[in-house]
Amino acid sequence: MAQEFDVLVIGGGPAGYVAAIRAAQLGLKTACCEFSPYADPKGLPRLGGTCLNVGCIPSKALLHSSELYFEASHAFIMHGINAEGVSIDVPSMIRRKDNIVTQLTQGIKGLFKKYKVSFLPGKGSFVSEADGLWKMKVGDDEVLARNVIVATGSRPRTLPGIDVDNVNILDNEGALQLAEVPKRLGVIGAGVIGLEMSSVWQRLGSEVTILEAAGDFLSGADAALAKEAWKIFTNKQALKISLGVQIRKVEQAKGAIRVEYENEEGEQILDCDKLIVAVGRVANTEGLNAAAVGLSLDERGRILVDDHCATRLPRVWAVGDVVRGPMLAHKGMDEGVMVAERIAGQAGHCNYATIPWVMYTQPEIAWVGKTEQALKDEGVPFKAGQVPFLANGRALGQGDTSGFVKVLAHAETDQILGVHIIGGNASEMIAEAVLAMEFGASSEDIARTTHAHPTLSEVMHEASLAVSKRALHF
Amino acid sequence: MAQEFDVLVIGGGPAGYVAAIRAAQLGLKTACCEFSPYADPKGLPRLGGTCLNVGCIPSKALLHSSELYFEASHAFIMHGINAEGVSIDVPSMIRRKDNIVTQLTQGIKGLFKKYKVSFLPGKGSFVSEADGLWKMKVGDDEVLARNVIVATGSRPRTLPGIDVDNVNILDNEGALQLAEVPKRLGVIGAGVIGLEMSSVWQRLGSEVTILEAAGDFLSGADAALAKEAWKIFTNKQALKISLGVQIRKVEQAKGAIRVEYENEEGEQILDCDKLIVAVGRVANTEGLNAAAVGLSLDERGRILVDDHCATRLPRVWAVGDVVRGPMLAHKGMDEGVMVAERIAGQAGHCNYATIPWVMYTQPEIAWVGKTEQALKDEGVPFKAGQVPFLANGRALGQGDTSGFVKVLAHAETDQILGVHIIGGNASEMIAEAVLAMEFGASSEDIARTTHAHPTLSEVMHEASLAVSKRALHF
Repeated sequence: MAQEFDVLVIGGGPAGYVAAIRAAQLGLKTACCEFSPYADPKGLPRLGGTCLNVGCIPSKALLHSSELYFEASHAFIMHGINAEGVSIDVPSMIRRKDNIVTQLTQGIKGLFKKYKVSFLPGKGSFVSEADGLWKMKVGDDEVLARNVIVATGSRPRTLPGIDVDNVNILDNEGALQLAEVPKRLGVIGAGVIGLEMSSVWQRLGSEVTILEAAGDFLSGADAALAKEAWKIFTNKQALKISLGVQIRKVEQAKGAIRVEYENEEGEQILDCDKLIVAVGRVANTEGLNAAAVGLSLDERGRILVDDHCATRLPRVWAVGDVVRGPMLAHKGMDEGVMVAERIAGQAGHCNYATIPWVMYTQPEIAWVGKTEQALKDEGVPFKAGQVPFLANGRALGQGDTSGFVKVLAHAETDQILGVHIIGGNASEMIAEAVLAMEFGASSEDIARTTHAHPTLSEVMHEASLAVSKRALHF
Repeated sequence: MAQEFDVLVIGGGPAGYVAAIRAAQLGLKTACCEFSPYADPKGLPRLGGTCLNVGCIPSKALLHSSELYFEASHAFIMHGINAEGVSIDVPSMIRRKDNIVTQLTQGIKGLFKKYKVSFLPGKGSFVSEADGLWKMKVGDDEVLARNVIVATGSRPRTLPGIDVDNVNILDNEGALQLAEVPKRLGVIGAGVIGLEMSSVWQRLGSEVTILEAAGDFLSGADAALAKEAWKIFTNKQALKISLGVQIRKVEQAKGAIRVEYENEEGEQILDCDKLIVAVGRVANTEGLNAAAVGLSLDERGRILVDDHCATRLPRVWAVGDVVRGPMLAHKGMDEGVMVAERIAGQAGHCNYATIPWVMYTQPEIAWVGKTEQALKDEGVPFKAGQVPFLANGRALGQGDTSGFVKVLAHAETDQILGVHIIGGNASEMIAEAVLAMEFGASSEDIARTTHAHPTLSEVMHEASLAVSKRALHF
């Protein structure tokens, strides 16, 4: 007889596994199915999805290793540290990353056991609905579920005529598995993934050229931040970035890859040894049998949901990269919690206005809320406070004073509308700004809060003071 | 004729220079006098006080350099980074630190120019008061000031029979100026300064023994945190720490220092090459001519002030280390702002309940609010959520998973009463907790706030979830 659950989650990435854990915590009989090409030591599909297996987690491991290597090669001398023959053994670096991935993905299976989530290996799909129960297939098995949460995630977008083989032409997955530092690395796409992977390999010694279709660099970011990032990446770090690029042709020959493209200066050729294609991601809905049961998709192929991630089908929900909104793991996790709580009759809710964006470049980039451009477009009157890390004691101590914090507040109410950080610890500093916005804080609130000395967070304090033109250290 | 000011600040450390800048911003004619043994390139006294010259800032510079050295010597291999003959050139490391100090202390002079604060070199003291004006001396000059802010700071406490020469027996100042790594380093005092300096020199290769008078380790900290710190420092890092120590005798002979002391195991001898004495600090009030004008001191020699840092003399204020409360630069800076604003007729205020404590050990330690012991002593019912960094993806990526976040909230109202962090980025993570407490946040508030993935801040999120037993990743 088919197993029956209160909740079946399709997909064990961050949105899915968190939804499953939260549902189980709330007393719902919960299963989570996963069909992934990444196998655990027992041969079962790994949980954790793109994020843990081939996304955020492994990339951060490599970013850290490459940062250490870069510091050893470039910054040690300033500290009086002598080291000779600094070199990187890429397979060891990759192995460390792989171990972290294994530990974390297996950790989720441990959490499933602890919280009594049934793990069902296999691809999940809809069959039909009757009597308040969804008949589902997981692999070859039939499963009955009162509620279904689709959390099937996303995959790299491909470009016509470019054949990702993950040997020479790479997506995010191949970019994390190189066996040596490519001499010349081409990257198509200057988004988060493109920039993070460029950072890793450039720090390890690659000559990196990034080709970006958009005419603006980091067009989603605040313009001041994008300008500062451009300056740092292209001047200080000598990343080559070409904007407004149209790719004409990509071919492999004689162990090299030739990219023919056009930018405003005319036709160009880029020869490189490896090419990373990072041109965005598309929702995974194939094989769900969505059409047969009437599960609606939007114009971009994502599952249509309301503000609470309910689809138009009864007791069917969708969360994470497979629905509208930013493709960020923490957004998906929050949606997972929300949906689990709503299924349990609680009032789960996501505040989409306070979801932070983070890019793990060096310096890091993070923001929450509105950009200056958006406020201008919306005609919202605002004040801005922007203070650099230049004179911050902690930044000086750590040898990285690049970047700034920019706080945007309403001109009349002083409510914080956006916080934009480029700097060494931006990914962590943004937490304070997110909490402030959750509380509807004014810039005065942060200005009146004690910030420990000496910390980078003091620049958040100064930028908040600067909103009302009373920065103390600038 | 004597110069006349609305405000004279005595002392140009963090509390003093910030008070001066804020007063000047508010339109008050302001001067700040400084009499310090540290001379700038022009031979004038440096601003910045202990913190910038021989405290927080130089110690953080050395801590960072020594961390890099330690990583190079111990952690590189895991990352696949090869480096041979890693060694430290102490004079270069010290020079980098000195350059940072020079840059920051000169920066304050720049801020004084920008905000039109008059810098008066010389020691400030009271003469008399008449007609709403204080007659003061600065060096040999007479100065008139409507308001006086005393910000004379603190100096290292000495122990009878121990002669600090800053060659072999060192206070915080000498500990920052060593020319080479001492083979055997003795440290008297396991407080912030003792532990930070121990960290620096131990990482660079010293055998460090710390002797502490108190019977408990980090007695001011939450007991769980102190226990974790003890475990990490003594087991993983092989710091030797002896508690309940009574120093009997310290003598120098044959290029070594012999410390005779007693602990619960009986009489002991410690032979070392350098000895750091870090047994607390005392307020600087000598030479102010306090008694003559009736400026009252408390039983510990600090200037008596009310909650707003007003002394009992008309229009005389005191801020920073020279008054009650923790000797922390950010506490002094906040008091400086408060007093300047009150002089200007505003409602300046300090929230002493939300001043964060930070120790820049490795891992870092930071807390805000009440400890578990304090809540028990006060009979306050509470819930605790404690989650380790062990399974945090960012911590794994960065190769440091030690420590935890502990959130204490009121058992009935859920209001956060204390947050205690030991972990890699504790000094920066505490900012979110401080802001939360400023807002009277509940643990639910942090639990409902999106935290970026993957960040260390997610452990703050999990610990807040754990308060109501619904951690997702633990």
